[in-house]
Amino acid sequence: MPPVHEFDLIARIRQRAAARGDVVLGIGDDCALLLPPPGMQLAVTMDALNAGVHFPPETAPADIGWKALAVNLSDLAAMGAQPAWGTLSLSLPQGDPGFVDAFFDGFFALAAQHGFALVGGDTTRGPLSIAITAHGLVEPGRALRRDGARVGDDIWVSGTLGDAAGALRQWQAGAAMSPALQARLDRPTPRVALGRALRGIASSCIDVSDGLLADLAHLCRASGVGAEVDVDALPASAALRNAFDPDTRRVLQAAGGDDYELCFTAAPAQRAALRQLSATLALSLSCIGSVTAGTGVRCDGVAAGAGGYQHFA
Amino acid sequence: MPPVHEFDLIARIRQRAAARGDVVLGIGDDCALLLPPPGMQLAVTMDALNAGVHFPPETAPADIGWKALAVNLSDLAAMGAQPAWGTLSLSLPQGDPGFVDAFFDGFFALAAQHGFALVGGDTTRGPLSIAITAHGLVEPGRALRRDGARVGDDIWVSGTLGDAAGALRQWQAGAAMSPALQARLDRPTPRVALGRALRGIASSCIDVSDGLLADLAHLCRASGVGAEVDVDALPASAALRNAFDPDTRRVLQAAGGDDYELCFTAAPAQRAALRQLSATLALSLSCIGSVTAGTGVRCDGVAAGAGGYQHFA
Repeated sequence: MPPVHEFDLIARIRQRAAARGDVVLGIGDDCALLLPPPGMQLAVTMDALNAGVHFPPETAPADIGWKALAVNLSDLAAMGAQPAWGTLSLSLPQGDPGFVDAFFDGFFALAAQHGFALVGGDTTRGPLSIAITAHGLVEPGRALRRDGARVGDDIWVSGTLGDAAGALRQWQAGAAMSPALQARLDRPTPRVALGRALRGIASSCIDVSDGLLADLAHLCRASGVGAEVDVDALPASAALRNAFDPDTRRVLQAAGGDDYELCFTAAPAQRAALRQLSATLALSLSCIGSVTAGTGVRCDGVAAGAGGYQHFA
Repeated sequence: MPPVHEFDLIARIRQRAAARGDVVLGIGDDCALLLPPPGMQLAVTMDALNAGVHFPPETAPADIGWKALAVNLSDLAAMGAQPAWGTLSLSLPQGDPGFVDAFFDGFFALAAQHGFALVGGDTTRGPLSIAITAHGLVEPGRALRRDGARVGDDIWVSGTLGDAAGALRQWQAGAAMSPALQARLDRPTPRVALGRALRGIASSCIDVSDGLLADLAHLCRASGVGAEVDVDALPASAALRNAFDPDTRRVLQAAGGDDYELCFTAAPAQRAALRQLSATLALSLSCIGSVTAGTGVRCDGVAAGAGGYQHFA
């Protein structure tokens, strides 16, 4: 296929970028110009995905575009921020118009769900790699941080755990991926509405990207607390239950990454509010343990191990 | 050398990041939290550098860190914005602590010159690649855009042109690079103070990254005007004059990239102000032509050609 000239590509992207009233100047100048609403804090995150490291090389281009944005919106969700604007750096081995158009089909499908405007970035020649910077808005003092967990808080997680890791394990074994699990690996759902709703309810929050136990350990370290997790309380999808034996499934739920669910803590007094929220959002919220004094994450009373979570690996 | 664990790396980077009062939460959570000053617009740019594409693979790691930030600060300068915060995505083939520390030596040396705070990002495993998103602040309505050039304006450029391209040409020929030219290739100077001072003086502005004629063509297209350039007026350093014959030198000046000087337009009534500014900043400013009706860039009366600037190639 003929190579895509960078300026043609930028023109094509510009036509598809959503309009927002607070974008003074979008794609096409040296910088975008944005007008943050008065009194709001700006939440900023940047995550990159490399082919073969963060997704299998044969992942559909539209799924790569979706996922690259989803992992960044998930960080905004974990802070309780409302997605606003983003920039994208796309490195491509060659200018393949089919790849680029499909990539942006996935990217803009998710962006449109959240009123998220692409305002700039660049395209370069190189190995397939995507870096996105996402900006969100959050009221001062209301962001969900990692460092607010208190001893006695409940630990909660949204949705189900282990689905993406289950799909990856099937792929690594050369088996066909279960469609429901593959959908979770390729098109994760950033829990933006949940993150917004947790302002004032959750005491701390993190998104599950490295794996529940690893991410909960980050949260505990930031908060100066420990955690006790009830492994049987970790939520599993029917697809995961069907695809794996119970021992393997529990490892995937506890240690598998790429779920992009939210793990958060909240005082026990918030249980009724969270049950109501779960119903409102039609999203399961599971209480999986409690915050303890000390340090480290324990699963069913056993230390989860440092870094590798050997108990589950 | 032993691989660097991502979390150790982040801790080391965090220790070196500059503090700013408007950074509510810096490196270490799902997002950074920033407090834009009331009434200011946010200028955002994102540029990536790939090894072997944007810099020779043997470039010193400290120079890579400097240059990756410089090209982004140059975009802020071209908008007249004051640098504020940034995020960095660093993809590394292997965790080499020596590379990483040297990279950040260069990065933070330049960041410190501009009070620029690194507030987040990520590190991934992959081919050497750096993407940076830089945020600056600019007063509403005072940003230097590409689309403000008017027929009859003078065209100006800062500093000297062609030095970086001259160094690259020496390197491509297998020759030793002239130290003065190599310094311009490896450690470009973003013209931040000039960009700030040009608010209210320049009618349009762009930074010279692709090459003067190419970047001036972008500016003309955005403004709906043409340009007439006097090639003999293009500024050259003594080092460039010493290293190349006049014909080669002129090609490097007109078409060579990576200078990161500012090319801007201003009404003739601004000439005295610009001469004063040049003295104040101790930075040469050269009037190289004028904005014309029509479209396209002409050099000494000859159309510079579409895209390739064949007249000079």
